[in-house]
Amino acid sequence: MNRQITLASRPKGFPVPDDFKLVETPIPEPGEGEVLSRTLFMSVDPYMRGRMNDRASYAANVQIGDVMVGGTVGEVVASNDPDFEVGDIVQAQIGWQAYGVSMGSNLRKVDPDLAPVSTALGALGMPGLTAYCGLLNVGQPQEGETVLVTGAAGAVGSIVGQIAKIKGCRTVGVAGSAKKIAHVVDALGFDAAFNYKEVADYSAELQRLCPDGIDVYFDNVGGAVSDAAFPLMNVHGRIAVCGQISQYNLTEVEQGPRFMWHFIAKRLTMRGFLVSDFADQHAEGLKQLAVWVNEGRIKYREDIWEGLARAPEAFIDMLRGGNIGKRLVKVAD
Amino acid sequence: MNRQITLASRPKGFPVPDDFKLVETPIPEPGEGEVLSRTLFMSVDPYMRGRMNDRASYAANVQIGDVMVGGTVGEVVASNDPDFEVGDIVQAQIGWQAYGVSMGSNLRKVDPDLAPVSTALGALGMPGLTAYCGLLNVGQPQEGETVLVTGAAGAVGSIVGQIAKIKGCRTVGVAGSAKKIAHVVDALGFDAAFNYKEVADYSAELQRLCPDGIDVYFDNVGGAVSDAAFPLMNVHGRIAVCGQISQYNLTEVEQGPRFMWHFIAKRLTMRGFLVSDFADQHAEGLKQLAVWVNEGRIKYREDIWEGLARAPEAFIDMLRGGNIGKRLVKVAD
Repeated sequence: MNRQITLASRPKGFPVPDDFKLVETPIPEPGEGEVLSRTLFMSVDPYMRGRMNDRASYAANVQIGDVMVGGTVGEVVASNDPDFEVGDIVQAQIGWQAYGVSMGSNLRKVDPDLAPVSTALGALGMPGLTAYCGLLNVGQPQEGETVLVTGAAGAVGSIVGQIAKIKGCRTVGVAGSAKKIAHVVDALGFDAAFNYKEVADYSAELQRLCPDGIDVYFDNVGGAVSDAAFPLMNVHGRIAVCGQISQYNLTEVEQGPRFMWHFIAKRLTMRGFLVSDFADQHAEGLKQLAVWVNEGRIKYREDIWEGLARAPEAFIDMLRGGNIGKRLVKVAD
Repeated sequence: MNRQITLASRPKGFPVPDDFKLVETPIPEPGEGEVLSRTLFMSVDPYMRGRMNDRASYAANVQIGDVMVGGTVGEVVASNDPDFEVGDIVQAQIGWQAYGVSMGSNLRKVDPDLAPVSTALGALGMPGLTAYCGLLNVGQPQEGETVLVTGAAGAVGSIVGQIAKIKGCRTVGVAGSAKKIAHVVDALGFDAAFNYKEVADYSAELQRLCPDGIDVYFDNVGGAVSDAAFPLMNVHGRIAVCGQISQYNLTEVEQGPRFMWHFIAKRLTMRGFLVSDFADQHAEGLKQLAVWVNEGRIKYREDIWEGLARAPEAFIDMLRGGNIGKRLVKVAD
């Protein structure tokens, strides 16, 4: 039998385990041009919270009773596409389930000799590409500039900071625990970082850690750290809006200080993006990320929970900031 | 004798007449390479409010006792620069005074046969260029798109809307009186406009007037109208931040709903700018604006107060939205 996790109810605020339901269904048969994969790892990502809402946003939302969406790494167990053979490892988008069919055109082959296959959901997958495409296209970091990254210990932020270092920037991270701060500074090589849960005056701390101001602000989180960052942006600074995880579980729109004046005084540019906006750079980006990973210039950490049944819990905990590095769920060996 | 208006005290909130002082001083002698001009018209503009503050922003602030800064149109009365003759009409930056010296390199000759010389401070001057450079570079309006303009009856907004019409856009204005609304729709040809002082639900009104959403938001004002505009932006929308006049006289930073999430969902770009960022386009811009004015495709309105002594009052009233079109002060015939 197949096992699937479906959306049982739409969350009000933070999701709870009862918003999800584990169901058993027959394993599907692949149709013409389709490939059946058996999930080894599934990804839980912040964006999935938006798909649980009533209203569609930039992508369609999940309907009640539907399988939760998301990326997987799996093994091909049946194939009606000549490009894929049984035993191939593929990155698919079949969501939170043990088996699923995909059109071959929606699959990406993963080379198990290049790196652990789970990285196809992290440093060498969507989060890595989000960091790569977003930082380079929107942030446009120049040598000697200061790059501020929120969610610095997360799947995207941890890669952003390391690419910024490769580009010769001073890199400052913000994260939510002492362990995360130690990780990004000691293991990942950020120049500095602070724990926003412990620091009271974000503005003073940012001024201390960014003595030359901020040239690139790569934001995964939003909220009060952004409030403190805008006034410290340098002339012609760039703000890459990648995520706003501090806002996803609010039941009312939060208020904050107006900041558009700074955009005039400093001639700032702020741009929101999705990784799919840069689809034409994905192949090149994955190649470059793999080189950097193999050279040891990009380190990654995975935070793996075991068992499909624990996916809701792994997801909710990630939304609360429980992960260091890429949160994954291991579904099968 | 020369007459000058100096900064007497730094305003707390809205400026008051006592923040300014009218003083008499000797008419200065032009030094080497300098030109003495007698002011005919002087400009009052929203940006001057920022110069009255304690802290320098993108430009140096005015010190207590200094002449208020600003653009003028004057007649050359003495010249030590061979490029300028007595009787020439020049656009200068000598501020709020009846006479002043400038380096010739800081003057722009004004052709009195092209248009009334006062337009060198409005449609054919800094405000016109601000509209032209800002809309075309930052807004990048495409035929058939919807352009929303705040401060639509002001010196910049009125030109922005007309250029947007020339570019084939649906153009919607926001302004603060019934007279202004009538002016921008009936005289300037905006497709629609609303009076933000009379409309209660900005979001509903914007949805009504922008049925296809907003592609370009050219903002001179900020505040609650912006709050309503962001959620209605279309995918790949552009926000040109030109002014934030609603915020200039606040004594505390105003709070508003956080809106960065919309930047991700719609992949918006917001960019603040100064007209000086596009200095290399000014000559071409002035030429194009003059063509449009002479073809009757850009109409302008001037709102002229008489007498240098009334400049503070004219300025304060402009900050309160009293002007329709470009607010000027006529200093001499």
